[in-house]
Amino acid sequence: MTCQSNKDLQNIIDEVRPLTEAGVVADYIPALAKATKNDLAVAIYEANNNCLYAGSYLKNFTLQSILKVLVLALALQDRGVEYVFERVGMEPTGDPFNSISKLETSIPSKPLNPMINAGALAVTNMIRGESDAEKWNRIISFVKCLSNKKNLSYDAEVATSELKTAWLNRSLCYFMKQHNVIDGDIEDLMMVYTKQCAIEMNCFELARIGAVFALNGLDPETGERLIPIHIARICKTFMVTCGMYNASGEFAIKVGIPAKSGVAGGILAVVPEKFGIGIFGPSLDKKGNSIAGIKLLEILAQQYDFSIF
Amino acid sequence: MTCQSNKDLQNIIDEVRPLTEAGVVADYIPALAKATKNDLAVAIYEANNNCLYAGSYLKNFTLQSILKVLVLALALQDRGVEYVFERVGMEPTGDPFNSISKLETSIPSKPLNPMINAGALAVTNMIRGESDAEKWNRIISFVKCLSNKKNLSYDAEVATSELKTAWLNRSLCYFMKQHNVIDGDIEDLMMVYTKQCAIEMNCFELARIGAVFALNGLDPETGERLIPIHIARICKTFMVTCGMYNASGEFAIKVGIPAKSGVAGGILAVVPEKFGIGIFGPSLDKKGNSIAGIKLLEILAQQYDFSIF
Amino acid sequence: MTCQSNKDLQNIIDEVRPLTEAGVVADYIPALAKATKNDLAVAIYEANNNCLYAGSYLKNFTLQSILKVLVLALALQDRGVEYVFERVGMEPTGDPFNSISKLETSIPSKPLNPMINAGALAVTNMIRGESDAEKWNRIISFVKCLSNKKNLSYDAEVATSELKTAWLNRSLCYFMKQHNVIDGDIEDLMMVYTKQCAIEMNCFELARIGAVFALNGLDPETGERLIPIHIARICKTFMVTCGMYNASGEFAIKVGIPAKSGVAGGILAVVPEKFGIGIFGPSLDKKGNSIAGIKLLEILAQQYDFSIF
Amino acid sequence: MTCQSNKDLQNIIDEVRPLTEAGVVADYIPALAKATKNDLAVAIYEANNNCLYAGSYLKNFTLQSILKVLVLALALQDRGVEYVFERVGMEPTGDPFNSISKLETSIPSKPLNPMINAGALAVTNMIRGESDAEKWNRIISFVKCLSNKKNLSYDAEVATSELKTAWLNRSLCYFMKQHNVIDGDIEDLMMVYTKQCAIEMNCFELARIGAVFALNGLDPETGERLIPIHIARICKTFMVTCGMYNASGEFAIKVGIPAKSGVAGGILAVVPEKFGIGIFGPSLDKKGNSIAGIKLLEILAQQYDFSIF
Repeated sequence: MTCQSNKDLQNIIDEVRPLTEAGVVADYIPALAKATKNDLAVAIYEANNNCLYAGSYLKNFTLQSILKVLVLALALQDRGVEYVFERVGMEPTGDPFNSISKLETSIPSKPLNPMINAGALAVTNMIRGESDAEKWNRIISFVKCLSNKKNLSYDAEVATSELKTAWLNRSLCYFMKQHNVIDGDIEDLMMVYTKQCAIEMNCFELARIGAVFALNGLDPETGERLIPIHIARICKTFMVTCGMYNASGEFAIKVGIPAKSGVAGGILAVVPEKFGIGIFGPSLDKKGNSIAGIKLLEILAQQYDFSIF
Repeated sequence: MTCQSNKDLQNIIDEVRPLTEAGVVADYIPALAKATKNDLAVAIYEANNNCLYAGSYLKNFTLQSILKVLVLALALQDRGVEYVFERVGMEPTGDPFNSISKLETSIPSKPLNPMINAGALAVTNMIRGESDAEKWNRIISFVKCLSNKKNLSYDAEVATSELKTAWLNRSLCYFMKQHNVIDGDIEDLMMVYTKQCAIEMNCFELARIGAVFALNGLDPETGERLIPIHIARICKTFMVTCGMYNASGEFAIKVGIPAKSGVAGGILAVVPEKFGIGIFGPSLDKKGNSIAGIKLLEILAQQYDFSIF
Repeated sequence: MTCQSNKDLQNIIDEVRPLTEAGVVADYIPALAKATKNDLAVAIYEANNNCLYAGSYLKNFTLQSILKVLVLALALQDRGVEYVFERVGMEPTGDPFNSISKLETSIPSKPLNPMINAGALAVTNMIRGESDAEKWNRIISFVKCLSNKKNLSYDAEVATSELKTAWLNRSLCYFMKQHNVIDGDIEDLMMVYTKQCAIEMNCFELARIGAVFALNGLDPETGERLIPIHIARICKTFMVTCGMYNASGEFAIKVGIPAKSGVAGGILAVVPEKFGIGIFGPSLDKKGNSIAGIKLLEILAQQYDFSIF
Repeated sequence: MTCQSNKDLQNIIDEVRPLTEAGVVADYIPALAKATKNDLAVAIYEANNNCLYAGSYLKNFTLQSILKVLVLALALQDRGVEYVFERVGMEPTGDPFNSISKLETSIPSKPLNPMINAGALAVTNMIRGESDAEKWNRIISFVKCLSNKKNLSYDAEVATSELKTAWLNRSLCYFMKQHNVIDGDIEDLMMVYTKQCAIEMNCFELARIGAVFALNGLDPETGERLIPIHIARICKTFMVTCGMYNASGEFAIKVGIPAKSGVAGGILAVVPEKFGIGIFGPSLDKKGNSIAGIKLLEILAQQYDFSIF
């Protein structure tokens, strides 16, 4: 299947692209800093397998935090709802995604939700597997199914670079290890975590993942169930309450659909029953979301009445 | 219009009423402590003006925090979206409803959202009116329209008692006055605020308010617009992200509909396009929500697939 | 008794006065903003009733936070050590003097020490007296004894101005009232508190108060006991651990003597057994201490080996 | 030199030993949990090299946090005052010794002082040495000089056990590495840190270290300078403002001398110009200080008027 270029979408892209000037590309590792600031692309994958796009929709980018919602879907299948939420909370937080203070002040100490770094690290720690290799294979296989990208892989330069500098994530891990939220070797966990964050695809493939959630877990092409319905629903709920870092509340007000962003500029968005949306725009606003991507979704939501509220 | 007793609803009431034993009635003022712990009632107000109930659905209770969402709807009409959100944030918080710490650590200092006490006090401060009397009249008139309760009033004993002991709310007010989030006389504001929290009705009337939100702001009987559509939507969004105190995330996962609770045991819930729900059950869980009321909504949501996710 | 001008002191004054350019005068109320930024004066009151000075040592200024240590001395006499420290802690804090967060996170809620605003408000609340007038009279009489200033009074313009704008202190008071740390009417307390902060004297009179502490509570002229020895010692200890806001630790390292500063630029310092020092320099550093006054004490401490460590 | 048993000291020991029942022995690692709860010993090392003792003063224990002040003394010699305090603050904190929140909220992120774990880890990281072995040798040699214990060593079981479980300290280290407060390999640092905490001696030898500080850095036997005077003074100041965890303020009020405690039950105390005191009593109060040891110092301080205030 290939996507159709769409003039309406292209008009919106043209309208919001100037916003990219006001943002900044992530530069905490060199590999991300190389991104082209003005890049902007969108793909819409409809439930009936039509696809529309505008911009450089075949350009690859690393998913980063978007993986948090996919790994959550897998961990919930691996361990069950009860096990997962005994170790990670369900509540949104007004704190930044990488904050450690709440881990200290919460009693018992557990990450507030699976969309902040601490929570995602704890969730990745729950993926089943005898070895790190097996855990990693299960993650990449699951994402392969969702995206239908046969040659799905990760950007080794990004993963290596993150692994070398992710001191704050290690700090979160050791804090949680102290409080028995996670177990096992931290460096092994960091290896899996940084590799999963570096999984790369284009926004058409990301839109297809959105379509799976839009269909509550069904493969849009085969109709096969890829995610149990109750788990798909939980994932969409977290995308609404905590998907866009500590701008989630504002995004819910202004756009009103489940979405998850990543620091490389990707956004996975879901219009329930209708379609998945994949966006790539590496210029970020102060909260860490694609600055033009958010505006693009805001315009789409208003024009086509996407809001679930 | 009168409500019809409903056997299915009654069965659920019978099933969850024992939970009331595990909770506690609010006792920070004597007037609330007098509540009957085992009380439980529900009313469902359908878009077509049918109404079902089970339990003592005509028993009055004070709305307390439920008013937060109604006053927000009025303030947004009075001041516009931009004005309101310059002074109050849109983000959920993992902190308790009465916390003051975030006011200190946020820069600039502003309440994270309109559903915590600080935010609701700031929003009440925005209601238009030359005098407190006028502000109060506008609030009660607005709630009268929504509930269609002709003789709507407030419980003077509760209001007086809260006014005498609301030291923490005064602390929040003065903190915000220091930071120019609110202006004017604090005691005047406290008077209006405690009176609005003491507005009383039964769960049938509360369900009718829910029906207005379910219809995106339209009166279910007359079809008249009571709330602009974009404001109704904003209110429902906050009900999802922050309506159930710091159990909002869990409620969104388990029930998945807009809802707002109050410390007297009321819950206002909305099933979009379909119906409003009013609940009264004064026995509260540790987060301050009606312990049996939440379970009742959970069962309803599963049986009738209410979730918006 | 009159003071002798001293050439060594004058040389130090000349050396550090340029530092006043780098600081700022308190400007949160107009009456304080009128201070002359380059003012700098010091008086040393020796145990044998000699007195040395340099700079405009007869210029009056309001004591502000310096009163905290004097009111503590009075409250400890009024209520006893046990009563006072059941309600106010003994621990220094890394937080700013006006912070409220720790009140929320401490269990039970009580101010960490009597030198931060919350603690000083609680301590002022403990002063004995049937009425506010009586409490106020007892405070001013006590300070009159310590300073031997017959016509001791307060700056009404400063007091009135602070009373009108002290929203943060009111917030602290109501928070503590909620938690039963203080009782009674908050506005009455604020009246006494703002008046005591506005008590004014010159740095010679302030140095005499220092001499009383240097002599562990004895009047340097009459030998009369003005403060019980164990209370004088407690006060000096707090001056070391928390006297200079959240620069107390650094001051202890660099100067090493009991001292308490105020936002109008005063510093009360004590060299045990030897003398009291009064300083006035309204240009403040970022922590709120007299920028040149601190440097002056640092130089004196090194030249004359003042440190108690 | 040997110590003389002293009847007065023994009487105080007998008086306070029952307090050990009210405390608990540290049990976060098995090696510490083996301590005998009722143990209590004290040695006083006078400036003139007399020595008094009571209790089992030759029993060895690990110094734990007491090392923090010794490593600070060495780091200040290695790097100078300016370098050290650019990376570690001078301010006491009301937070627990192992807290991480302040690292997050402080701007720039640096440990508040060298007596909390974060600060001590940063200070240990500053010790000069081409390799960990060299750093470790320099630390143990320095402590050997201070204590004059020829065969000074560390408890390998304790060190190994702490190294295996010190997840929270690793979390603090990685957090500081993220913020460039410390550099180098964290596991290497942890190795040195856990070994230094496990250095063991008896309370006579500890009292001798106290005597060195009492003499402002001079060896009490040879008169040789072991610590520069300005550094000895800095160390004593920190012992007063932050030596007894978050009970330092209370200890300063009640005892009033420089002291540093460790979780194995040791206390190093200094009566300036006069003597050093070493205490061992493994039963701890809630703040982590030797419960009977603190009382013993309180009684001594009152009987012999030790307070520096």
